Amino acid sequence: MTKPSVPKGTRDFGPDQMVKRNFIFDTIRRTFQRYGFLPLETPAMENLSVLMGKYGEEGDQLLFKILNSGDFAAELGEPDWREGSKKVTPKIAEKGLRYDLTVPFARYVAMNRHEITFPFRRYQMQPVWRADRPQRGRYREFYQCDADVVGTGSLLCEAEIVGMILEILDGLGIPDFTLKINHRQILAGIAAVIGAEGKEGEMCVAIDKLDKIGRAAVVEELRQRGFSDDAVRKLDPVFELGGSTAERFAQLKALLTSSEAGLRGVDELEQVWQLTRDSGLPDERMLLDVTLARGLSYYTGAIFEVKPNHGSVGSISGGGRYDNLTGAFGLKDVSGVGISFGVDRIYDVMEALNGFPADHYATTQVMFTHFDAEAGRYALPLLRQLRGAGINAELYPEPGKLKKQLDYANQKNVPYVILIGSDEMQTGQLTLKNMQMGTQRKLTMAEVLAVLKPVGSWQ
Amino acid sequence: MTKPSVPKGTRDFGPDQMVKRNFIFDTIRRTFQRYGFLPLETPAMENLSVLMGKYGEEGDQLLFKILNSGDFAAELGEPDWREGSKKVTPKIAEKGLRYDLTVPFARYVAMNRHEITFPFRRYQMQPVWRADRPQRGRYREFYQCDADVVGTGSLLCEAEIVGMILEILDGLGIPDFTLKINHRQILAGIAAVIGAEGKEGEMCVAIDKLDKIGRAAVVEELRQRGFSDDAVRKLDPVFELGGSTAERFAQLKALLTSSEAGLRGVDELEQVWQLTRDSGLPDERMLLDVTLARGLSYYTGAIFEVKPNHGSVGSISGGGRYDNLTGAFGLKDVSGVGISFGVDRIYDVMEALNGFPADHYATTQVMFTHFDAEAGRYALPLLRQLRGAGINAELYPEPGKLKKQLDYANQKNVPYVILIGSDEMQTGQLTLKNMQMGTQRKLTMAEVLAVLKPVGSWQ
Repeated sequence: MTKPSVPKGTRDFGPDQMVKRNFIFDTIRRTFQRYGFLPLETPAMENLSVLMGKYGEEGDQLLFKILNSGDFAAELGEPDWREGSKKVTPKIAEKGLRYDLTVPFARYVAMNRHEITFPFRRYQMQPVWRADRPQRGRYREFYQCDADVVGTGSLLCEAEIVGMILEILDGLGIPDFTLKINHRQILAGIAAVIGAEGKEGEMCVAIDKLDKIGRAAVVEELRQRGFSDDAVRKLDPVFELGGSTAERFAQLKALLTSSEAGLRGVDELEQVWQLTRDSGLPDERMLLDVTLARGLSYYTGAIFEVKPNHGSVGSISGGGRYDNLTGAFGLKDVSGVGISFGVDRIYDVMEALNGFPADHYATTQVMFTHFDAEAGRYALPLLRQLRGAGINAELYPEPGKLKKQLDYANQKNVPYVILIGSDEMQTGQLTLKNMQMGTQRKLTMAEVLAVLKPVGSWQ
Repeated sequence: MTKPSVPKGTRDFGPDQMVKRNFIFDTIRRTFQRYGFLPLETPAMENLSVLMGKYGEEGDQLLFKILNSGDFAAELGEPDWREGSKKVTPKIAEKGLRYDLTVPFARYVAMNRHEITFPFRRYQMQPVWRADRPQRGRYREFYQCDADVVGTGSLLCEAEIVGMILEILDGLGIPDFTLKINHRQILAGIAAVIGAEGKEGEMCVAIDKLDKIGRAAVVEELRQRGFSDDAVRKLDPVFELGGSTAERFAQLKALLTSSEAGLRGVDELEQVWQLTRDSGLPDERMLLDVTLARGLSYYTGAIFEVKPNHGSVGSISGGGRYDNLTGAFGLKDVSGVGISFGVDRIYDVMEALNGFPADHYATTQVMFTHFDAEAGRYALPLLRQLRGAGINAELYPEPGKLKKQLDYANQKNVPYVILIGSDEMQTGQLTLKNMQMGTQRKLTMAEVLAVLKPVGSWQ
């Protein structure tokens, strides 16, 4: 006998969780669709040549690699094995599991460049796998929900990203969040004006920790990374940026007067804000945060991050503009902008808020009970009629004790039960029991159909 | 530069294919839900201890195995390597990719036996992976869509499987198919009455090929497998079974008088037919086919298979009753019955029939064109209004040449375009262009909203 378990860092999602997760997926997907994004799916496995070198050295380590099929060891001699895991891996594993949705998307765009109509808007909602050390809120298998537009540098796309974020969080019922926005050229400009031109990467790594370790520790880290006292002092206005969005923009422009790149970044973000207002969207949850860096090095323009204002969940969404994502696959100069939502963290936030709609728990809407086989047969055409009307319905599969059947309905959160007994079969009047209220009444089938309403597809 | 490609036997699904595939997924899912089935998802990776030995020796070979993370080679000495691929695999790979949805489901049920309300109805729609040699119609990554009820032996469940098959194929627009039904106890009974008791496994392997190789070759194979001339001769009435369903049942009963198991199988199938008729479902596409065997050894009762009547696609759905699926995981005597739909083959059948609904191709319903930035800004609140009404809408992200914008809409099969120019901004009358007809008319926004209707979620 095999003692059953799931691999470390992976999870089963039973019906209760699935119904809630699907509410999140549906809300995100429906918004992506309303914005004209089209679905894409890529294989779980990618060639390691596609994945390696795209996520840094640490990322390469965290890729799940798939052992070649067949007699993978046949071609290898002892010297190969002796070289150790790292050297032998490429000889016995050609494929790996997808690490994110961005690299497979870039590969897809490069492979299909001649068939794709640009600007290309795609969404993709699939699991990714990382051999990270599992811990609370960090899994080895988790879903990403991405939307990207590639093939245009238009800032209308940034404004649409903002619009989608606001609508999705509104649809999910998460009102209290901050949408932090920054621009990579602003960060480059800051590095330039403090006299550390080209060192914005290292500057960002340190500044990115501000939320976690505080200003003093960030300053200390900058010093350790070789930033001069003068450079660190010149960063003061960056840490002290404040006031309204307009005031922040003004302070930034004053700071960046000598940096063309920096001023271009400011100008672009001002346009994003303006386009958002032009769309009639509220902007009070948008925050110009010049300490937002976002680790991924491929961003070149605006960057986004969403954090709930309460709890310790961290960011639930992030993204930005990139100029050369497909370059690694031989397709240069394709600018794009994208956003990614993390379903697992959104789930945790919504659980904490008790934010899932109650009627999404109800999957089966009505269940027939029956005392004997004859009553069961009597229920069959009625069952078919209900399902034909789009109502989720079932017949308890075994006749017998009513209590057992009602217990089942209760445990499954079925809101209505129809009792079929000899009375019901004689009169054609059905007994409809409201499981929450405990009340019951006699109704014709037509009346039952009027009480129960068809539901949409929840998946 | 990496030359981009996908691993052998795997595929990308671009927007056109995804929209069609999602039509299939939605139709299946919606039917599963109407029948009271609840969603379950399990991890892509399972421990190899869960997977190995469940699919026969060939299946073990076809499992994709995942290389252990970290320094997997550290603990190994030269003798380990010398033992060859098969012996070294368990030492360097603990996990494998899901091969089907049935074993992970059985594991889930066994692990969660105390929380689950039985009878447990679950559906599961996820990809599976097999290291098969890729060929036309056979892939290394493909989706299965399964629905199972476990924890009851009620034949109402078999009747519901029949009902779901009929409704799903109806919903997909595949009218011309045969639903073959048989029973493992009938096969056991036949083996007994021909004097080959207990050899029904071997008998089935041969008989299963009837469609492909013909009766003479099946008889020859049976002889090679050690079936006596007498036994093979006694099989004649099995091959010659014919007439109406009632006649077939009568012939079978005459044949199986001496086999209790066989007669029980016949009785159960008669009930399934009766319950189907009681439900008001048409039964003319159901065929009692005693040569249907279905390879999987875990079936113990009724078995099902669906084949389109035209084309060479093979079966698009199959399933049956099993009595001890969870036994391997320490949970005995849990009877269940399930059905699985193969999305890839259904896709091929529907493509051949030209059977996808046209309006599922249309993803974006309306697109705004704009001549300059001012017109773009004018469109933004209108865009928001359309999306708020549940309409999939987009704004071409760059102002400029109308032709380029209309070409994009054409290539993306967008049915309507709204042209924004100086006239439109002055009068508030929008120009709505029907892209298929080539006609255009001036409408207010309220009129546009009346022409365009919101769509459901297609994922």
